[in-house]
Amino acid sequence: MAIEGAELVKAAAFLGAGLAMGLGAIGPGIGEGMVAAKACEAIGKNPKEAGLLTRTMLVGQAVSESTGIYSLVIALLLLFVV
Amino acid sequence: MAIEGAELVKAAAFLGAGLAMGLGAIGPGIGEGMVAAKACEAIGKNPKEAGLLTRTMLVGQAVSESTGIYSLVIALLLLFVV
Amino acid sequence: MAIEGAELVKAAAFLGAGLAMGLGAIGPGIGEGMVAAKACEAIGKNPKEAGLLTRTMLVGQAVSESTGIYSLVIALLLLFVV
Amino acid sequence: MAIEGAELVKAAAFLGAGLAMGLGAIGPGIGEGMVAAKACEAIGKNPKEAGLLTRTMLVGQAVSESTGIYSLVIALLLLFVV
Amino acid sequence: MAIEGAELVKAAAFLGAGLAMGLGAIGPGIGEGMVAAKACEAIGKNPKEAGLLTRTMLVGQAVSESTGIYSLVIALLLLFVV
Amino acid sequence: MAIEGAELVKAAAFLGAGLAMGLGAIGPGIGEGMVAAKACEAIGKNPKEAGLLTRTMLVGQAVSESTGIYSLVIALLLLFVV
Amino acid sequence: MAIEGAELVKAAAFLGAGLAMGLGAIGPGIGEGMVAAKACEAIGKNPKEAGLLTRTMLVGQAVSESTGIYSLVIALLLLFVV
Amino acid sequence: MAIEGAELVKAAAFLGAGLAMGLGAIGPGIGEGMVAAKACEAIGKNPKEAGLLTRTMLVGQAVSESTGIYSLVIALLLLFVV
Amino acid sequence: MAIEGAELVKAAAFLGAGLAMGLGAIGPGIGEGMVAAKACEAIGKNPKEAGLLTRTMLVGQAVSESTGIYSLVIALLLLFVV
Amino acid sequence: MAIEGAELVKAAAFLGAGLAMGLGAIGPGIGEGMVAAKACEAIGKNPKEAGLLTRTMLVGQAVSESTGIYSLVIALLLLFVV
Amino acid sequence: MAIEGAELVKAAAFLGAGLAMGLGAIGPGIGEGMVAAKACEAIGKNPKEAGLLTRTMLVGQAVSESTGIYSLVIALLLLFVV
Amino acid sequence: MAIEGAELVKAAAFLGAGLAMGLGAIGPGIGEGMVAAKACEAIGKNPKEAGLLTRTMLVGQAVSESTGIYSLVIALLLLFVV
Amino acid sequence: MAIEGAELVKAAAFLGAGLAMGLGAIGPGIGEGMVAAKACEAIGKNPKEAGLLTRTMLVGQAVSESTGIYSLVIALLLLFVV
Amino acid sequence: MAIEGAELVKAAAFLGAGLAMGLGAIGPGIGEGMVAAKACEAIGKNPKEAGLLTRTMLVGQAVSESTGIYSLVIALLLLFVV
Repeated sequence: MAIEGAELVKAAAFLGAGLAMGLGAIGPGIGEGMVAAKACEAIGKNPKEAGLLTRTMLVGQAVSESTGIYSLVIALLLLFVV
Repeated sequence: MAIEGAELVKAAAFLGAGLAMGLGAIGPGIGEGMVAAKACEAIGKNPKEAGLLTRTMLVGQAVSESTGIYSLVIALLLLFVV
Repeated sequence: MAIEGAELVKAAAFLGAGLAMGLGAIGPGIGEGMVAAKACEAIGKNPKEAGLLTRTMLVGQAVSESTGIYSLVIALLLLFVV
Repeated sequence: MAIEGAELVKAAAFLGAGLAMGLGAIGPGIGEGMVAAKACEAIGKNPKEAGLLTRTMLVGQAVSESTGIYSLVIALLLLFVV
Repeated sequence: MAIEGAELVKAAAFLGAGLAMGLGAIGPGIGEGMVAAKACEAIGKNPKEAGLLTRTMLVGQAVSESTGIYSLVIALLLLFVV
Repeated sequence: MAIEGAELVKAAAFLGAGLAMGLGAIGPGIGEGMVAAKACEAIGKNPKEAGLLTRTMLVGQAVSESTGIYSLVIALLLLFVV
Repeated sequence: MAIEGAELVKAAAFLGAGLAMGLGAIGPGIGEGMVAAKACEAIGKNPKEAGLLTRTMLVGQAVSESTGIYSLVIALLLLFVV
Repeated sequence: MAIEGAELVKAAAFLGAGLAMGLGAIGPGIGEGMVAAKACEAIGKNPKEAGLLTRTMLVGQAVSESTGIYSLVIALLLLFVV
Repeated sequence: MAIEGAELVKAAAFLGAGLAMGLGAIGPGIGEGMVAAKACEAIGKNPKEAGLLTRTMLVGQAVSESTGIYSLVIALLLLFVV
Repeated sequence: MAIEGAELVKAAAFLGAGLAMGLGAIGPGIGEGMVAAKACEAIGKNPKEAGLLTRTMLVGQAVSESTGIYSLVIALLLLFVV
Repeated sequence: MAIEGAELVKAAAFLGAGLAMGLGAIGPGIGEGMVAAKACEAIGKNPKEAGLLTRTMLVGQAVSESTGIYSLVIALLLLFVV
Repeated sequence: MAIEGAELVKAAAFLGAGLAMGLGAIGPGIGEGMVAAKACEAIGKNPKEAGLLTRTMLVGQAVSESTGIYSLVIALLLLFVV
Repeated sequence: MAIEGAELVKAAAFLGAGLAMGLGAIGPGIGEGMVAAKACEAIGKNPKEAGLLTRTMLVGQAVSESTGIYSLVIALLLLFVV
Repeated sequence: MAIEGAELVKAAAFLGAGLAMGLGAIGPGIGEGMVAAKACEAIGKNPKEAGLLTRTMLVGQAVSESTGIYSLVIALLLLFVV
């Protein structure tokens, strides 16, 4: 086996990138779904406030998205920079 | 065993791609389902606002989709670029 | 053992394809089921809007399907292209 | 041990096929069950719309089935084509 | 150890068959149970529609059964054909 | 170690049989319990339809049982035929 | 290490028996508990139908028990016959 | 290492016994708890039927206990007979 | 390494004892908690039947305890007798 | 490596003790919490029966505690006696 | 590798201590939270009984804490005494 | 294999970074989603307080975000500083 | 490999510390969240008792915190003292 | 392989840091989300008490945050001090 250390490091980085993005998409995916589900319910009951509710939904989702973006950043760093 | 390091790296990248996409599809899949489920419920109760609700549903799903797309990007990068 | 590196890569790609498709079918499968379940409930209460509700259901499911299709794409790429 | 690489690849493909189909049957199986459960409930309350509801149920289940079929396709490809 | 490659392949196929059928029975088993549970509830409330409800239940369960049958097919293929 | 390949195959088949039956009993066991639980509830409210409900319960359980029987078949095949 | 193949097979069979019975007791144990719980609730509300409800409970539990018995059979076969 | 095969078999049997009993106690333990919880609730509402309800509870628990006893039997067989 | 087979057997027995008791305490612990929780609720609503309810609670818990005791027995047998 | 068998046995016993106590604290911890939660709720509604409810709560918790104590006993035996 | 047996024992004891305390904190942490949550709810509805409710809450939490303390004891014994 | 220790350390750090960020995104992602979901519901019912509610939502999400940021910090430290 | 036993012990202690604190933060984190959630709900309904409720919340959280602190203590002992 | 013991210790410490922070962010992340969700709901119903509720929310979240901070401390100690 002609494996050098730098290659073992790369292999670990690639596996880690896959785990970081895969696991890191579960939380925001479900969380943002809950936000939009409740926003649809609220708009259905009170359609006059649709603009306000859509704005709140997008702000709430944007914050919830953040951890998904952190995961993306870590995965990209593991792929290219390191 | 005539395994070289570059091949170990590839093997790790392919396993990582599979995990990233497989795990990363769980969250958005369930989350978007919750959005559309509530949108159907709301349209059933208030069909006059169907256009507004469909638009909200699609916007909410699009944001929730984002982490699934990140997973796809990471998996494709692991397959082709790296 | 006469295993060469290219074969280890293939073995990892096949295992990864299985995990990507297997795990990636859980989220959309459950999510789309939730959409259709609520659509049936809504049509039962308000059958006059059946066309509108079926259309909303299909649009919502189509978006939720997307991550399942990403998983299929990654699995096929792992099988044939790589 | 007289194991050659092509056999290791096959072994990985068979394990991957089992995981793809086994895991991939969980989501659609539960999701379609939720659709049919709600359809029965709706028909019990509003039996005059049974035809409409059965049609909606089958369409919703067909879409939900799709990821199960993708899993079957990947598993068959892993068994025969690869 | 006098293990040849074809036997390693067989061992992997048998483990894969067990996992495919074992995991693949969880989803349909729970899903069909949900269908029949709701059907019993609906018949108890509206016994005049028992025939219609039983028929809907069986159709819904048949579709939900499909992924269980796919698992059976993959497991049998892993046992006998491959 | 005087292990021959045919014995490794047998060991994998026996482990696979245990997993197939053990995992495959979870889904139908819970699913059929849900059916019978709802049937008891419905009979308690509407005892005049007990015969009809028991029949529906048994039909629903029989379909749900099917994946458990598939698991039994695969486990027996792994024990005796293969 | 003086391990022969037949002993490896036995070890796998014993581990498989433990997993089959241990996992296989989870589903029926919970499922039958749900049946009896609902039966107690129904008898408490409608004690005149206790005989009918007890009979339905026992029939429903008997069917749900079946997968537990399959697990027992597979475990015993793994212990004694194989 | 002076390990003989019969000892490897014993080690596997003891691990299997622990898993069979440990996992096998989860289902009946929770299931029987659900039965007794509902029985207490029902007696609190309808104390005149306490005798009838206690009898139903014990019958329902006895059936639910059965898979726990199967696990005990398999564990004892793994310890002493095999 | 001067490990003899009898010691490997002991090590497996001790690990098995830990798993049997640790896993086996989850089910009865939660199940009995559900019984006592409902009993407290029922006594709070109907304090005149406290004696009857406490007796029912203890009988129901005693049956639910049984699988915990089986786990204890198996663990003690693994520690001392085997 | 100068590892003797008696030390491997001890290592397994210590790991087993950790698992037995760690897993064994999950069930009773949650179960007893459910008892005390319902007892607080009941006392808040019916404070005149506080003494009776506290006594019932303690008896119910004591029984639920038992499996936690069994885990402690097994862990202590694994640490000191064996 | 100059590893002696006593060091392997210590390594196992330290891993076991970490698992015992880490897993053993899940149950009581959630259980006690449920107690205090219900106590706050009850005090909010019936603030005159705050003293009584706080006392009941603390007694109930103390019993639920016990399994957490057992875990601490086992972890400390694994660290220092053994 | 020409692996040096510093490379093994790096490999472990990269895997650890992936796990820290991947797992660490689950909790905040779901938690923040719950906050925004309830905020949308509350704004839908009481749109006059939208400003107040949005502010509360953002403060609550910011605190919940903190553990996600800790995970990011640990992952970045594992990538670059260590 | 120039690994000495004392270093293996340290490695195990560090892994154990990570697991103890990581797992040990799940229970109290969720439990205390439940307490504060219910306290906010109760204060919203009965703001006159805010002082009393905040005090109860803090006492309840302090007890629930205890197992988190035990985990911290065990993790610190594993890092520095042992 | 030129791995020295101190490097194995470091590798274990880095993996442990990743696990401690990753797992340790799940509990507080979800718990604090529950607090803020209920606070938004309460403010929506009773906006006059917004100041009081925000303060309670922040205090409750601060206590729930503590275990997340412990995890951060342990992870940092594993990275830099040890």
